[in-house]
Amino acid sequence: MTHQRYLLRGDFISAPELGEMAVHEDAYISIENGRITGFSDQRPNTGPDVTFIDHKGKLIIPGFSDVHIHAVQYVTRGLGYDMELLPWLESYTFPEEARFHDPQYAEVVFRDVVRDLWAAGTLHTAIYSSINTDASLELMDCFAQAGISAYVGKVNMDRNGGENLEETTEESVRETIRFIESAKPYADKRVWPILTPRFAPSCSDELLKRLGELSVEHGLPVQSHVNENMGEIAWVKDLFPGSRDYLSVYEDFGLLPKERTIMAHCIHNTKQEIDLFREKDVLIAHNPDSNSNLASGIMPTGDMLDAGLRIGLGSDVGGGNRLFIGHAIDSAMKQSRILWALTDHAHRTISFAEAFHMATTGGGSFFGQTGTFLPGYTFDALVIDDRRFTRHRPLTVFERLQKFVFAGDDRDIAVRYMAGQAVPEPFTAE
Amino acid sequence: MTHQRYLLRGDFISAPELGEMAVHEDAYISIENGRITGFSDQRPNTGPDVTFIDHKGKLIIPGFSDVHIHAVQYVTRGLGYDMELLPWLESYTFPEEARFHDPQYAEVVFRDVVRDLWAAGTLHTAIYSSINTDASLELMDCFAQAGISAYVGKVNMDRNGGENLEETTEESVRETIRFIESAKPYADKRVWPILTPRFAPSCSDELLKRLGELSVEHGLPVQSHVNENMGEIAWVKDLFPGSRDYLSVYEDFGLLPKERTIMAHCIHNTKQEIDLFREKDVLIAHNPDSNSNLASGIMPTGDMLDAGLRIGLGSDVGGGNRLFIGHAIDSAMKQSRILWALTDHAHRTISFAEAFHMATTGGGSFFGQTGTFLPGYTFDALVIDDRRFTRHRPLTVFERLQKFVFAGDDRDIAVRYMAGQAVPEPFTAE
Repeated sequence: MTHQRYLLRGDFISAPELGEMAVHEDAYISIENGRITGFSDQRPNTGPDVTFIDHKGKLIIPGFSDVHIHAVQYVTRGLGYDMELLPWLESYTFPEEARFHDPQYAEVVFRDVVRDLWAAGTLHTAIYSSINTDASLELMDCFAQAGISAYVGKVNMDRNGGENLEETTEESVRETIRFIESAKPYADKRVWPILTPRFAPSCSDELLKRLGELSVEHGLPVQSHVNENMGEIAWVKDLFPGSRDYLSVYEDFGLLPKERTIMAHCIHNTKQEIDLFREKDVLIAHNPDSNSNLASGIMPTGDMLDAGLRIGLGSDVGGGNRLFIGHAIDSAMKQSRILWALTDHAHRTISFAEAFHMATTGGGSFFGQTGTFLPGYTFDALVIDDRRFTRHRPLTVFERLQKFVFAGDDRDIAVRYMAGQAVPEPFTAE
Repeated sequence: MTHQRYLLRGDFISAPELGEMAVHEDAYISIENGRITGFSDQRPNTGPDVTFIDHKGKLIIPGFSDVHIHAVQYVTRGLGYDMELLPWLESYTFPEEARFHDPQYAEVVFRDVVRDLWAAGTLHTAIYSSINTDASLELMDCFAQAGISAYVGKVNMDRNGGENLEETTEESVRETIRFIESAKPYADKRVWPILTPRFAPSCSDELLKRLGELSVEHGLPVQSHVNENMGEIAWVKDLFPGSRDYLSVYEDFGLLPKERTIMAHCIHNTKQEIDLFREKDVLIAHNPDSNSNLASGIMPTGDMLDAGLRIGLGSDVGGGNRLFIGHAIDSAMKQSRILWALTDHAHRTISFAEAFHMATTGGGSFFGQTGTFLPGYTFDALVIDDRRFTRHRPLTVFERLQKFVFAGDDRDIAVRYMAGQAVPEPFTAE
């Protein structure tokens, strides 16, 4: 990137610390080479090399991070929400995923996924592809073309996948290495590979061991699922009698690289698992929509924040049905309040500021310095045109953010910035 | 209406019976004078007096009924969802409602409300205005202009309303009579008045008694709130020591006219209240979004359906944050699955077919013969252009409906029909 300096005006709100909002109303943010240098209340004197962009009166927030989503379930999202996890996987998810051996199908669907993520204001995502390496590379290519940052996982499963959705252990390892090697050119587009053993039941001990070795050898992050459903947990106990608990299966095979692991769901955790999450600084992917659609339960988010865990939000499409991470904020708050009400207040509610932190700063922490407006952070942001919400009564900047999240949608997003550059709608030529 | 006959082609789906879907794929529906006469699989021979409208390949569903919503909370929806009911009313709702003494403000906001209901595919609604009679008549006028069917309530509250939001008992009765009289011209537009004691704590015994008399005298339906929040229930017990329970307060004052009462929330009910709901054939307004936003709890919907109660869905804006009744279907299903999971399966889940029935047939039952596609029913319907969901794989008509509800929104609604006539977007001249 050439040396570029920008000055942007607008109403900024972000959540640099858990539980607190930082507001800069009618302020100016300075950006150099894609990174924030600071805020001013008055327009600073700048030379002709600084481009001024006026978003006066617009709400400017950090871009959303979606830290758990399955690209290959996009087509089936919304279907079969009267099942639980395991039969739902068998009926809808696995047959659909098997279709991604067809590269043409993969390209058509993935372009839709990436365009719709762009529309929803998701600027960073940790995403599962299928077991197919070429499809997974195609997905990386779509993100790179679109200018959206992503960790993309070629899924590993050498058992319990069903027809056309299993690899041998050797195939799985060999294809993972091919995926890692082929993925390298995308790194400078902020698109990286992530090791993705689907979940413990879909991987043999040998495969998990080999993936753990690959993580060390290539310095790769890991994403997987844990403690989503009681039936799943019982199954894992049967499959891995030597491990202390579900999370320990991953630990036992070297698949919890410190600070570089995302674990999805994390609903039914033991005290020891909570400690292990913290020890490894795992990023918890909280997926409230999916957790209710598949009757999995409510993650005790307030307790887990109090335990010092790092938490982001996931749409978990297709178990979840909405891409818009504003909807995940909404659902996370709703569920924490339901849990509080139904447990005689044994679990505390979470605040809006906490939920917004998870959606931006928390999830963003996995993607480098992003997710909030601090000096040194990349300016990855959404400009919200919220005049439809402010025309009836004056609202504070914080109230405007609540309106956007609870009553707005992608239509209210006017501009998306990645590293200080406006990102146009991708794949419009079709 | 002049004698008019139409023939419409499309993919029809509705829920005439609780728990069952009726599908007519690539079928023809005949409409005479706004009412359905029947379906044909083949195009019938019709004379030149029958207008043929081709929606081939489009999904056609009954229009939504929103049986609980506050028009005067539209502006504050999404704000203050870290409070419970009573402080939320004091902080956000009551001050906003007091603004509706200004007729200009009322007109501007109500036009937005009605236009956005139109957009969301809500063709029938039972709606609360404020205590202001002129504002309430303005709201009726907006519905009549738009061609949306509505029961509109001028709210009664002669205590506990706070500044600018109370009437004397005499004022309340006098203004209610003025409202009823002035509302008469709207009846032929399917816009009617409904008695609306806000909730028991906001009405004196004398006011409740007088409203009960008005209900009998004018044959008027009633809407109110019951059993939303534990603090509210305790308060009612204090205020009405002579009544058996919260619901009985309304019964004791003659405010449960049989088949013509809507009670909102109904979360924390006694066995005797369940029996009274059934005896009076009360329409239960289930408001899942609001019930979670305000930490009220989960209505045990499956149990209440099994008890033979009549249930519709409400957006409950502003306690609820989304107008789209598809979102209420989504949230009702999610919550029933959460309740099942969190109570060790003590409460059953509801099916999609049941949730869709509540959103259409159940709620619609309050507005005459509407809400489903049966002979004699008015053809009040939405035409959904769902090509974005079907382009990747073939879907059954039932799957397409699930996609629209769970992943779609108002943008997918191509045409709205009321009594067989397409309803254009209202108030576009602004």
